[in-house]
Amino acid sequence: MMSATSLTGPLSALLAAEPRVVACGAGLFADELTAQAASVLPVDWRPPVAGTETALARVMADPRRAAANALALERMLASTAELVDVVPAGEALGLEPGTFLHAGPPVTWERASGPLRGALIGATLLEGLAATPEEAQALLASGSVRLEPCHHRGAVGPMAGVVSPSMWLFTLRDEANDRTSWCSLNEGLGRVLRYGAYSPDVLDRLRWMSRVLGPLLRDAVRRRGPIDVRAIVSQMVQMGDEGHNRNRAGTLMLLRELVPDLIESGAPTADVAEVVRFVSGNDHFFLNLVMPAAKLATAAASGVPGSTLVTVMARNGTDFGIQVSGTGDTWFTAPAEVPDGLYLGSYGPQDANPDIGDSAITETVGIGGLSLAAAPAIVRFIGGTVPDALRTTGEMYEITAGENPAYAIPILDFRGAPSGIDVAKVVRTGILPQITTGIAGRVAGTGQVGAGLVKPPMACFTAAVHALAASC
Amino acid sequence: MMSATSLTGPLSALLAAEPRVVACGAGLFADELTAQAASVLPVDWRPPVAGTETALARVMADPRRAAANALALERMLASTAELVDVVPAGEALGLEPGTFLHAGPPVTWERASGPLRGALIGATLLEGLAATPEEAQALLASGSVRLEPCHHRGAVGPMAGVVSPSMWLFTLRDEANDRTSWCSLNEGLGRVLRYGAYSPDVLDRLRWMSRVLGPLLRDAVRRRGPIDVRAIVSQMVQMGDEGHNRNRAGTLMLLRELVPDLIESGAPTADVAEVVRFVSGNDHFFLNLVMPAAKLATAAASGVPGSTLVTVMARNGTDFGIQVSGTGDTWFTAPAEVPDGLYLGSYGPQDANPDIGDSAITETVGIGGLSLAAAPAIVRFIGGTVPDALRTTGEMYEITAGENPAYAIPILDFRGAPSGIDVAKVVRTGILPQITTGIAGRVAGTGQVGAGLVKPPMACFTAAVHALAASC
Repeated sequence: MMSATSLTGPLSALLAAEPRVVACGAGLFADELTAQAASVLPVDWRPPVAGTETALARVMADPRRAAANALALERMLASTAELVDVVPAGEALGLEPGTFLHAGPPVTWERASGPLRGALIGATLLEGLAATPEEAQALLASGSVRLEPCHHRGAVGPMAGVVSPSMWLFTLRDEANDRTSWCSLNEGLGRVLRYGAYSPDVLDRLRWMSRVLGPLLRDAVRRRGPIDVRAIVSQMVQMGDEGHNRNRAGTLMLLRELVPDLIESGAPTADVAEVVRFVSGNDHFFLNLVMPAAKLATAAASGVPGSTLVTVMARNGTDFGIQVSGTGDTWFTAPAEVPDGLYLGSYGPQDANPDIGDSAITETVGIGGLSLAAAPAIVRFIGGTVPDALRTTGEMYEITAGENPAYAIPILDFRGAPSGIDVAKVVRTGILPQITTGIAGRVAGTGQVGAGLVKPPMACFTAAVHALAASC
Repeated sequence: MMSATSLTGPLSALLAAEPRVVACGAGLFADELTAQAASVLPVDWRPPVAGTETALARVMADPRRAAANALALERMLASTAELVDVVPAGEALGLEPGTFLHAGPPVTWERASGPLRGALIGATLLEGLAATPEEAQALLASGSVRLEPCHHRGAVGPMAGVVSPSMWLFTLRDEANDRTSWCSLNEGLGRVLRYGAYSPDVLDRLRWMSRVLGPLLRDAVRRRGPIDVRAIVSQMVQMGDEGHNRNRAGTLMLLRELVPDLIESGAPTADVAEVVRFVSGNDHFFLNLVMPAAKLATAAASGVPGSTLVTVMARNGTDFGIQVSGTGDTWFTAPAEVPDGLYLGSYGPQDANPDIGDSAITETVGIGGLSLAAAPAIVRFIGGTVPDALRTTGEMYEITAGENPAYAIPILDFRGAPSGIDVAKVVRTGILPQITTGIAGRVAGTGQVGAGLVKPPMACFTAAVHALAASC
C-alpha cells in the first residue's frame, strides 16, 4: 500500500512516466495491446510442477540455500582436471575379480536393459569367467557377479559403462581438491561393448586396447607429464564441440598433446602408428576424458548442506538417477526416457533402448546439451535445428545457478556455459535439463543405433525437492 | 502504369490487402510510422560510388554478365584441391637463382614497404647471395635480383610472400581442372621472414625447414597419397575456423592425416617428434594449404568473358591489387590500407605496415573475413565483436554471386559461405569485402605486431568496373 506522502519518494517516478503493461500467461492480451501500439513487457510464467508447491516453498525459503548454492558452484568452477596416468581398472580401483562396474544408479541383472546385459556378457567373456555368451548369461543371472555403479567408486562410464578389472582407465586428478576420477578408454562407435555388443570382433578390440593402447597411452602420459583436460575442454567449446556428442576438436587436441611422447616412447613404430590411427579415427575418443573431468568438478560441489544443485545425472538403461549436493550420495530415480534422434542405417525408434550412461555428467557440469549453442553443427548428428540449439542454451540459464567463464560460448558473446542445475529452479519452471546422447539398441548385442536428444524424468527432481524439504 | 482492366488480374490483390509502406533512405519516416502502429518495410538503399554511374550501368546491362558469373561461380565451386607433394621452389616452379617471388601485385625494391624489404633481405642471406643485411640491401637496390609476384607463377604467399629457390613449397592439384598451385611452409608467428624479420634465428628456422621439415612432409605425403584439402576446409568452418586468421582445427586435422605416415616414414624418431611439435605449436600452419586451395578455385573461375567476379585479391604492403574474371590477368591496384586490430605486447597502430600478403585469396573464395560468422571466437585475436562478425557475413551476401554449399556455416543454419565477390555489386552498394589479416611491423626486420581487420581500397573495384565497361 502506497501512502500519499510516498509520492515525493522514489515511487513517485512510477506516476511521472508513461504507463507500461506487463503481461503474463496467455499471449493474446499482449498481442492485442501491441497491435494498438502500446508498450508491453511479456513475462513467461508457469505454475510450478503440481504437488510440489509446499515442499518447493520450503526449499526456496531455506535461508541456507543461496550461500550453499554459491559455495557449491564456486567449488565446481574452481576444480581442476589433469590426465595423470592410464592404468588397468584392477589396479586403479582395486576392482576385485568378479566385480563389474556399470553406468547409472544401482541396478540388478533382472532389471537391466538389453545393452547393459550385452556389455556385462561381453565383460564376463573378456575376463574369462565364461566361455560362451550363454554361460556368461547364466553366471550373471546366478547373482555371483557383483554389480556396482561407477559413481560409487568415483568413476564414470559412457553408455552401459561396464568396467571389468582388466580394462584400462584414464586417471584424472583434481589437485586443488585432492580428488581422483577414472574413465574407460573409448572404443569408437557402432558395434562396441558400451552399446551392448559382445561379438568376437568387439572382444578382440578390447584385448588390443588392454595389450597395446592402454600401455602406450600410459607410457606417453607418464613421459609427458599431466595434461590439462579442463584447458582442452575450454578450447573445444570454442571449436564447435559441446563435449558430449561432439568431441572432434577435443580429440584432435588430445592427440596433439600425446603424439610427440608416443613417438619418443620407444614403442614399436607399427604400434605407435596403429594407436594414432585408432585415436584419430574416433571423434569421440576425448569424451572419456571430458566425463571424469566433469565428475571431478561436480564431486567438488557435492555435500554442501542446503545446496539444491545437481551433482550427478546418470542412467543405467532402466532408471535415470540424480544426486544433489545437499543430500549427498542419495539417488533420486525414475524410469529413463527413450531418446528422440537420428538413426543409423535401417534402425528406427522401435530399436531404441531407454536412455543409458554416465555421460550426462557433462550436462551436470554445464556442457553437453546445456551448451548446445556452442555446437550448432551437432544438429546434423543428433537432430533438431540450429535455432533450437540456441534457444535451448538460452533456456538452460533459467535452471542453473551461474555461468562458467572457463567454458565461454563464443556465439553468445562469450557468455559462460550455464552451470549448476538447481533442482528447485527445475521444479519451479518445469524446464528440464537438455541432454545429448548416443542411442543403444534395446536388444543385447546390437550396439549403437543412433544419437539424439533426451531429458531426465521430472520425477527425479520432484523427489529431490521433497527430500530437501524434509531436511530444511 | 496500371490500367483499369488489370484490376481483375494478379495485381488486384494489391488493392484487396492492407496498404503497406516501403521506406528507403533516412530512417526517420519509418520510425514515425512504426510508432503509429503502421506496418513498414524498411529498405536499405544507397546510391552507387560517385563517378561510376555510367560505367556501372553499362556493366550491369551487359547481356553476358548473368551467365558469365554463373559459369565462373560454378567453376569456382566445382574445383578440387589435394595436397600431392612437398618440393623445393627451384624444382617446383623452375625458380631461377636470383629470382624471388613476393605477395601482391608487381612492385619494385624502391616502392617496397619495410616488411617486404626485410623478407627480401632475409631470402638474399638464406640463398647465400650476400653475407650481411647491408650487402643484401645493396644487391637488392642494384636491381640485379628479379622480383615477381607469386600469382604470376600460380603460387601464393602469406604476408611478404617471399619465395626463394631453396624454400620448400606445398604442391596442390585440382585434377578436375588440371591445374596446380603452390605455397610456402608456414614458419609460425612473431619474428618470422614473412612478417619481414631476418635475424639469425629466423634464417636458422628456415634452414631447418628446408633440411628436415620439407623432406619429412614430402615423404609422408608421398607415402600416404593425396590429402583432400577442400574436405578439411569444409570441416574447419564447422569448427570455428574462418581459414584466414583462425586455422586451429584445420591444422589439427592436417596433423591427423600426416602423423601415421610421418611415423612410418623411417625418418629418425627425434626428427619426426620435432616436426610434429613444430606443426602442433603453430595454429596457422594450415593457412598455407587453405591459400593454394583457394587459388585453385579462383583460378578456375578466371577468364570468363563478361564475368564481373573477383579472382584475385592480393597486397604487397604498398599496393592492393585485384583481378577480375572478365579481364583476365589485368591488375587493378590502389594504395593498401592500414589494418585496424589488436596489437602484440607494446606495439601499437604507429608500428603497423599497410596491408600485405596473398592470403586475401581466402576471402576471394568466400571464407576468411567473408565467413567471420563461422569463427566468432576470432574476435579475441583480431578485435571486433561477435554481433559484428555475424552482421559482416550477412552483408557479404549482398556483394557475392552465390553461396558455397561445401563451406556451410552452422550458425547461419548451414548457409553456404558467400562466394564470388562481384565488382559490380561492390560498386553498386559501396560495401567492400571484409578481410581478416595479420599486421606486419612497418620497419624491416620487426616481424608481426598484431592482427586485425582491413578492407580493400574502393579504387580497385571502380577501376575494374571502368575496364569491364570498356570491354562490353
